Amino acid sequence: MSEPEAAGDNVNNEENNPPESKTENKNEEEQPEPPKEMKAVVLAGFGGLKSVKVMNKPQPAVGEGEILIRVKACGLNFLDVMVRQGVIDSPPKTPFILGFECAGEVEGVGEGVTDVKVGDRVAALTEYKAWAELVSVPAKYVYSLPQGMEFQNAASMLMNYVVAYILVFDIGNIRSGQSVLVHSAGGGVGQAISQLCKTVSDVTLIGTASKHKHESIKDSFAHLLDHGVDYVQEIKKLSPEGVDIVLDCLYGDDANKGYNLLKPLGRYILYGTSSIVTGETKSFFSFAKSWWQVDKINPMKLFDENRSVSGFQLRHLLYQQGAHEYVRGVVNKVFKMWENGHIKPVVDSTWAFEDVPEAMQKLHDRKNVGKIILDPNMEPKPKPKLQTKGSKDKDKEKEKDGKAVGETAAGESTDAEKENKEGDSSAPSSAN
Amino acid sequence: MSEPEAAGDNVNNEENNPPESKTENKNEEEQPEPPKEMKAVVLAGFGGLKSVKVMNKPQPAVGEGEILIRVKACGLNFLDVMVRQGVIDSPPKTPFILGFECAGEVEGVGEGVTDVKVGDRVAALTEYKAWAELVSVPAKYVYSLPQGMEFQNAASMLMNYVVAYILVFDIGNIRSGQSVLVHSAGGGVGQAISQLCKTVSDVTLIGTASKHKHESIKDSFAHLLDHGVDYVQEIKKLSPEGVDIVLDCLYGDDANKGYNLLKPLGRYILYGTSSIVTGETKSFFSFAKSWWQVDKINPMKLFDENRSVSGFQLRHLLYQQGAHEYVRGVVNKVFKMWENGHIKPVVDSTWAFEDVPEAMQKLHDRKNVGKIILDPNMEPKPKPKLQTKGSKDKDKEKEKDGKAVGETAAGESTDAEKENKEGDSSAPSSAN
Repeated sequence: MSEPEAAGDNVNNEENNPPESKTENKNEEEQPEPPKEMKAVVLAGFGGLKSVKVMNKPQPAVGEGEILIRVKACGLNFLDVMVRQGVIDSPPKTPFILGFECAGEVEGVGEGVTDVKVGDRVAALTEYKAWAELVSVPAKYVYSLPQGMEFQNAASMLMNYVVAYILVFDIGNIRSGQSVLVHSAGGGVGQAISQLCKTVSDVTLIGTASKHKHESIKDSFAHLLDHGVDYVQEIKKLSPEGVDIVLDCLYGDDANKGYNLLKPLGRYILYGTSSIVTGETKSFFSFAKSWWQVDKINPMKLFDENRSVSGFQLRHLLYQQGAHEYVRGVVNKVFKMWENGHIKPVVDSTWAFEDVPEAMQKLHDRKNVGKIILDPNMEPKPKPKLQTKGSKDKDKEKEKDGKAVGETAAGESTDAEKENKEGDSSAPSSAN
Repeated sequence: MSEPEAAGDNVNNEENNPPESKTENKNEEEQPEPPKEMKAVVLAGFGGLKSVKVMNKPQPAVGEGEILIRVKACGLNFLDVMVRQGVIDSPPKTPFILGFECAGEVEGVGEGVTDVKVGDRVAALTEYKAWAELVSVPAKYVYSLPQGMEFQNAASMLMNYVVAYILVFDIGNIRSGQSVLVHSAGGGVGQAISQLCKTVSDVTLIGTASKHKHESIKDSFAHLLDHGVDYVQEIKKLSPEGVDIVLDCLYGDDANKGYNLLKPLGRYILYGTSSIVTGETKSFFSFAKSWWQVDKINPMKLFDENRSVSGFQLRHLLYQQGAHEYVRGVVNKVFKMWENGHIKPVVDSTWAFEDVPEAMQKLHDRKNVGKIILDPNMEPKPKPKLQTKGSKDKDKEKEKDGKAVGETAAGESTDAEKENKEGDSSAPSSAN
């Protein structure tokens, strides 16, 4: 592990990296110190895995009402894949630092911040910028960690369990005896939903996931179905009257299927649109296809059928709709449940910043079971053989504004369309 | 009050009424006794108030799994107005006995019924046929009354509080600190919603109602608005960010307004369509207009906006979707809340069967505050002057299959369109 102050040193790139030791020797009165640098995962442009680069960036200043966090663990969410492809509404201008959640130690507090102090252990739901050694976050998005909660725990839990809690309890209003259909049962949110549902008596959980995951998640769900088969018929065999709650992170044809599987007073809840991600890069065709195949609903239809349709997107709720006090309440409840031993995050794997493309590809291909974590202090996987495979690859790596790492290890995206439809995403996602 | 067995005697109509005393003197072995008769409120044909007639009808037999109830009080709901007009889906063939709820004493139990015995005090949610001296109801729709609950209490509470409970708690999932917009605030359901919401701390209730009702219901709502004015602007003044829950029994333009008033994570719930009732008789135009003006919703819109849309219709839930066990659970919870003094039904007025048209007109014109009750043992209002007003009226009354009573007292429906939009309905209603 490298020391934080020497962070720039272990970044293997060609950027002009100001030598910090020399800067420190200069007369501070005469010349302002150039900003210190930090390592960050930057999206150079919307597109494929090659757009994801580890770069040196100036350390952020801590503004009024903000908290500067030295990041120890980050969460990777399906939302990040969608951001990379540009299939979200109002994307920021590239280049920018990726990432929506992290956990770490408070390194500085801005004016007006009273709840936390330097050295406190916190987690944050950031609007981008989380995948860096340091991030400055408005205090309203920062949450103190309970004693004993490790940074990896927090980064595994924060977004997934907040999303799952709101879906299951606040929107779903789950009650004893009910049944729930969960797509992407093996992902981070799927696993969180399963654990939260199990805190309610006599809830029947039905999950869809790729066949190869069934063995590893069989204890989380009463029934596991292969998303690739006709899961509607399978569910009708299990429960002819349908299910009480459908939690859909896929959209497209699964939205109509989910709605039609509802029992009286049932709720269909859309919280992601990952089915519009079909390949490594953006596909307007797949988005348009999804949009048109989903039935529009007149409230009169819901009235006749005694059904509810809901949408949930944490990103809009938190950063655009100002519901940070509400989300803080949910975080507190989730952390309390963790303290009481009612929930326990499942970590799939942990990755160095340099290996983010590989980690992203694993998520894209729905090969993870549980959460994928990034650790800014972790050494990247050695890949000497692959880097010397051909001069073509080498040339590409030497781009002026950073280095795409791990791209050959992650490999070019295969045609993921089929895999995708069986998939497991681990975060709410957005598209417009 | 007439004795139940002599019920036929006080019915003032021209039907061939078999003299019961003579029948009873005949030899029972030789000739089967002709069915005894009872007084009932019958819909002779879909249409205006003149279609509602008090008639003698054969007493119902009690079949397997059924309970025969001697009715002591009935509830009048807006649904009954819609049934009269024929603006519901799958209406029965006329003539039939009206009414969806009643309370009374068990007079007989069919084979297989074990929960109640003769003499028990019960209430029932019937599929029509409740407005009669006797009704035979499948046991699954019959509920035992708690000690001390009078028949009028039960008939006031049953449908309205079951609807309100499901809306507020099960679909609305109301929580402390939230705000609720209730249309038709003065009606039976509106008053029930208010009482149930007040069992949750710090809930802000906003109601719309005709101006003339505001004084009598001002204690039930924190804010009362005139439905006829621009209530959306008024609510935005009270709460710029909108409300958490909209409970809409009107449909039409109010559906769009309600949806657009939602806070993030807000719920719009449609539980009635009374705005399609504009005059005394059916209007396809008003239905079609409502249908087209309500925006259809793609779940993606809900996802972007963090909103829910729900529909609720007790009639479909109970009689078509088989949710009688669920409804029984709700009835038990409502009765328990009544026993604990948390809720107390508001009765607007009580009417004789003969005065049902007048009572219906009052409901249609939204002039009631609280529940309208029918009492089969009550003497009708005297109306000698009105009945002799003109020979034209008299001729009309002498129709071969019964007598329209109270029609002149109730008067022809005035143009109720404007009044209607300010209105207060007291039950979920249906239209297709």
